[in-house]
Amino acid sequence: MTMITAANQAKAHELTARLTLEEKIGMIHGAALFHTAAVPRLGIPELKFDDGPMGVRADTYDDNWAPRHNTRDAVTYFPSGSAVASTWNPAMARLVGQALGEEARGRGKDIILGPSLNIKRSPLCGRNFEYMSEDPVLAAVQGAAYIEGVQESDVAACPKHFVANSQETDRLDVDETISQRALRELYYPAFRAAVCDAQALTVMGAYNLVNGVHCCESRELLDDVLRDDWGFRGLVVSDWSAVRDTKASAEVGLDVDMSVTYDFDDYRFARPLLEAVRAGEVAEADVDAKVEHVLAVMDALHMLGDARADRKAGSYATLEHAQAALDAARESIVLLKNDAQVLPLDARAMRRLLVVGANADRVHSVGGGSAVVKAVHEITPLQGLNGCIGGNVEIEYVPGYWADQVTQDDTWQEDSLENSADDTRRNAERSRRLREEALAKVREYAAGGDPIVFVGGLNHDHDLEGRDRTAMDLPYEQDALIDAMLDIAPDTVLVFVAGSPVTMDWADKASTIVWNWYAGAESGNALADVLLGNAEPSGHLPETFPKRLEDCPAHAVGTFGLAGHVDYTEGIYVGYRYYRTKDVPVRFCFGHGLTYTDFEYSDLEVERVDGTLRVQMHIRNVGSRPGAAVPQVYLRLEGTGEDRPAYELKGFTKRWIAPGERVQVSVEMKADEALKYWDTKAGAWAVAPAAKVYVGESVEDLRLSGSL
Amino acid sequence: MTMITAANQAKAHELTARLTLEEKIGMIHGAALFHTAAVPRLGIPELKFDDGPMGVRADTYDDNWAPRHNTRDAVTYFPSGSAVASTWNPAMARLVGQALGEEARGRGKDIILGPSLNIKRSPLCGRNFEYMSEDPVLAAVQGAAYIEGVQESDVAACPKHFVANSQETDRLDVDETISQRALRELYYPAFRAAVCDAQALTVMGAYNLVNGVHCCESRELLDDVLRDDWGFRGLVVSDWSAVRDTKASAEVGLDVDMSVTYDFDDYRFARPLLEAVRAGEVAEADVDAKVEHVLAVMDALHMLGDARADRKAGSYATLEHAQAALDAARESIVLLKNDAQVLPLDARAMRRLLVVGANADRVHSVGGGSAVVKAVHEITPLQGLNGCIGGNVEIEYVPGYWADQVTQDDTWQEDSLENSADDTRRNAERSRRLREEALAKVREYAAGGDPIVFVGGLNHDHDLEGRDRTAMDLPYEQDALIDAMLDIAPDTVLVFVAGSPVTMDWADKASTIVWNWYAGAESGNALADVLLGNAEPSGHLPETFPKRLEDCPAHAVGTFGLAGHVDYTEGIYVGYRYYRTKDVPVRFCFGHGLTYTDFEYSDLEVERVDGTLRVQMHIRNVGSRPGAAVPQVYLRLEGTGEDRPAYELKGFTKRWIAPGERVQVSVEMKADEALKYWDTKAGAWAVAPAAKVYVGESVEDLRLSGSL
Repeated sequence: MTMITAANQAKAHELTARLTLEEKIGMIHGAALFHTAAVPRLGIPELKFDDGPMGVRADTYDDNWAPRHNTRDAVTYFPSGSAVASTWNPAMARLVGQALGEEARGRGKDIILGPSLNIKRSPLCGRNFEYMSEDPVLAAVQGAAYIEGVQESDVAACPKHFVANSQETDRLDVDETISQRALRELYYPAFRAAVCDAQALTVMGAYNLVNGVHCCESRELLDDVLRDDWGFRGLVVSDWSAVRDTKASAEVGLDVDMSVTYDFDDYRFARPLLEAVRAGEVAEADVDAKVEHVLAVMDALHMLGDARADRKAGSYATLEHAQAALDAARESIVLLKNDAQVLPLDARAMRRLLVVGANADRVHSVGGGSAVVKAVHEITPLQGLNGCIGGNVEIEYVPGYWADQVTQDDTWQEDSLENSADDTRRNAERSRRLREEALAKVREYAAGGDPIVFVGGLNHDHDLEGRDRTAMDLPYEQDALIDAMLDIAPDTVLVFVAGSPVTMDWADKASTIVWNWYAGAESGNALADVLLGNAEPSGHLPETFPKRLEDCPAHAVGTFGLAGHVDYTEGIYVGYRYYRTKDVPVRFCFGHGLTYTDFEYSDLEVERVDGTLRVQMHIRNVGSRPGAAVPQVYLRLEGTGEDRPAYELKGFTKRWIAPGERVQVSVEMKADEALKYWDTKAGAWAVAPAAKVYVGESVEDLRLSGSL
Repeated sequence: MTMITAANQAKAHELTARLTLEEKIGMIHGAALFHTAAVPRLGIPELKFDDGPMGVRADTYDDNWAPRHNTRDAVTYFPSGSAVASTWNPAMARLVGQALGEEARGRGKDIILGPSLNIKRSPLCGRNFEYMSEDPVLAAVQGAAYIEGVQESDVAACPKHFVANSQETDRLDVDETISQRALRELYYPAFRAAVCDAQALTVMGAYNLVNGVHCCESRELLDDVLRDDWGFRGLVVSDWSAVRDTKASAEVGLDVDMSVTYDFDDYRFARPLLEAVRAGEVAEADVDAKVEHVLAVMDALHMLGDARADRKAGSYATLEHAQAALDAARESIVLLKNDAQVLPLDARAMRRLLVVGANADRVHSVGGGSAVVKAVHEITPLQGLNGCIGGNVEIEYVPGYWADQVTQDDTWQEDSLENSADDTRRNAERSRRLREEALAKVREYAAGGDPIVFVGGLNHDHDLEGRDRTAMDLPYEQDALIDAMLDIAPDTVLVFVAGSPVTMDWADKASTIVWNWYAGAESGNALADVLLGNAEPSGHLPETFPKRLEDCPAHAVGTFGLAGHVDYTEGIYVGYRYYRTKDVPVRFCFGHGLTYTDFEYSDLEVERVDGTLRVQMHIRNVGSRPGAAVPQVYLRLEGTGEDRPAYELKGFTKRWIAPGERVQVSVEMKADEALKYWDTKAGAWAVAPAAKVYVGESVEDLRLSGSL
């Protein structure tokens, strides 16, 4: 495993002593939009960052966000963080991480800015598509595997954004009041696993303030928690332009100041810091510490001296990586509902197929903000379906609604994406016209008993860095279309391509619902494979889909998406911790995901041996197709003297089981980790004396229970 | 194997009897640019054609060549016919055919218009890139395997253009005088193998005339040779607009009249034929025969009645097909020269790499004529090199010459592509400026001992349907650039991406030359793999590269590319049959291709057992890397009383051998086939009483010899 050793630190210390102050200053701020300055006389190269996490971002100019438009920076487009989490399979997270790491190294990058590990506090957060989960354990396990994969290629991962960048509204200035309990139990763990388990070499400090302090100025976050508690030895880089006060950031463990402006001398850690050190306002020792962090990372990445000969080379835009994207995409698709067993579709029984919905025909790699990818290719759902069954089945496509295309480029501006009221009216009118056309087709196909697939959802005009959604409802009049379609054809296969939950008031009328995250280059092929049964659905929701936005705790307390100040008053009751404890019914619960087969759970055994909590069970595939069981272990801590969630995920696994096969499955956890909770009175971790243990295929579909 | 059975013919006969004359007429001419009319009352569907052979062409409108610009017709871009032949591996030809057949079926096509099997008579023919070889046996073996692969998916291959469409100049009207001996020995065999060995279900009649008769009106070609001699049971379709005279084509075995005009009623086999039959000028029995051919093909393809349920479905734009394209591309690359052992490049020893030449940065799928492909992706050489070694090696690119981009679209017009004299002058001036810049870089890299790769050659402004090249020289002042580069850096790796041989007067100065055909979606990755030794070069030239155009027999006799009339006075002395018999030195001979290892041949055994000619030998890999031996068996027929070529390829195989390994390899041929020749006096086939047998790695590198 790639990690920073004492030898790396010793070399960094020695080299730092030979650097001038000016050279050191050059190494801790951007000399370009995505790299620091080199020190050629000592063989110290530039440190090159690039955006992830869905692929290595295309090259910009050093001092200009305009794309270089060269033909060498097209890459493999990988599934989003939500999709990776949705596989509930760390092997898939590692596979994507490995491929991304190889691509980053192939593109000559040292640090890839991902994964994005913030907890999903609301369905409206603009960057939800990048984030993994509402649950800290799922985010931690998938995130750690992804990071380990990335770092196999002598590239550093950069888990971001530390911490609690859970809204985009006023992201540069919003002050979030968050309890220690919520920070420790919800918002830190994925980062802690990234650092302690996966040995992430770098961490990105978030834009926002937490409890009155900018994350990039926070001694508590960057020194006390990250370095002292977790033993982090790498470097902390600011989110781009997150450093606001030279002295405040210089005196804490923020190491590299990156920005989005073009006068590199004006960066806080450039001339301002140089002058502050010369004036005695900041100690040079603080600068030295940062440079040592940078050099230790460089040495761990084989960037210094003779070690360079051993540095891995990487590769990108290869078929192996496209295959990794396909494998992960297939496992990320969630079968939400299949009441009438419409799926899998039987291609041989099909004469023609109606596809409705503009997302069938849309690529998503081109948007989203810093997660934008210049993809070598991206297969749409419509192309995937045609590619799978086009020969014998006549596939007809109608858009069904008008998805307003906002011009995207690499220099996106948050404001430019807002539609005017006129635009909105015009688009709604277009959608109404397209709906009528589509419904005529739906009637025709329904009358003939021919299958209908709807592919709608969101796109990166909505799932977008820098701006939160304002409602959970589907845009473009989709609800009216779906509602009318279901009246005509209730067995329409409803597919949603999106990065965040949407309101589904018509859900009870629908027999068949499939969820497809932004799933990378092979997304459309993966979807077609699952719809047609060439691949088995095995994804499970990494977040709750509430019925209505108001049901969501952050919205129930009324503190999501405010400017200036946001109080996380819901505390640890985020996602299913809230819905299941407060008995709030949801549309689709956390952990939910159907297969084309069924599993029978039995023989729960719970034992604690040598600090390990081992939960074992038998699972039998009682259906006629292969499938993956995803046993999820939830604990209810007891005897803590605190209010505790009814269920908390503590471990899980994924196991492919053949039809008729019965296997014993074991989920192991560190007992102290599983049982620990934040003692609010003591302000410290404590261990629960007892717990109920639940195992199931979702937080609502609990099959077995026991005690500890 | 897919073939037309007596049952198919019986069903076709029965169905034909139930059709009206109007219905029959509708089935034998285009009702759209790429399909015939259906007869719904009898369950007879349209017959759908589409262009190949490098991928399934994008959809046009029914009555308009404009592309539909939909998002569903992007496909896998496969290596060209020349590249497929260059693998000297029928398994690769079959793999490409299988993938192409699946794509065609997936796109809903019934007939894919390929492979292109015409013999390469001159380096200047505009469609050489589609064609396989100058040699009938190589074209026959690779073509037959390709066809068998295509037809596994219930799709018909359509070998084209029958026959001797070996020039584009005046292609609609040129009359070619070709001796029976040359037709039988050179121009027919690949088509004969397509029909007799691979059971091709359809054949395309060529535009040109042979010996005074339009191919699509030729009783000799379409009835006597194709059906009577070879037993062809399928349908013959005209090249688009090749039917000129209604009665003449109607009365021979030309079955379907396709055209490039939009008034479908004006097609020769539409209203004109209908009227001719009604007027008693053409017998309705002639129409019936055509319809029976069409229906027999349809039935063999499972297009009729209940059999439709069994029809294969196909697939396209899949990673499996991209992998097939990559596998074939890797085996197609020919290492022409490696005198200084510069290749494979050692990525670990490389600090930086200079890439010169506009073909490094150019895609080729977008041009060529009817072989144009709307590719899901295409990796350029520059991207392939970056993708393989970009991480640790700084790759600098300079175009080095100006490759004038002629706007290409799907409605290409032959005339529009001509450059004016002004264009030519302006482009030459640009090339001179780019050359100076490039040479400065070359000096810099050469001085540092850093490797240099040149990627030049042709593109589809030159290798283009509808127009022959006018010279064999490289365009865009490339010779001046290469010459100057070699003076500075003789170990520059010269890579040529092209579909036809080019003059290489500087070749003796160069240590390292690599030939890369238009090689499909993964072309750049395949090239990078071979240059870096991640894959072993194993391609061999399927045609001779002469030193000068004048050396080429068609040009020596002065009858290539003329309008009106062309006399193939060189007879059977095409390609190496000429050069080796007349002792004309060439640049790179037929069959030539180096590896990164060496082979030792020994122990030739030649035996004739039960009609089989078996040539056996031992081959030892005496180098340190794996590699593919390509033993080529040439015969010199003796005692025939005719002038005969010094060497004629009769069989070959390809065998991967590990370092140090020694294997016995056997090449088997039908003895009568290998020994037969056209007796010019008798006007019939005869069998030579004796022959010399030669085995080697090219027609000049003969390692073993014996007698029969």
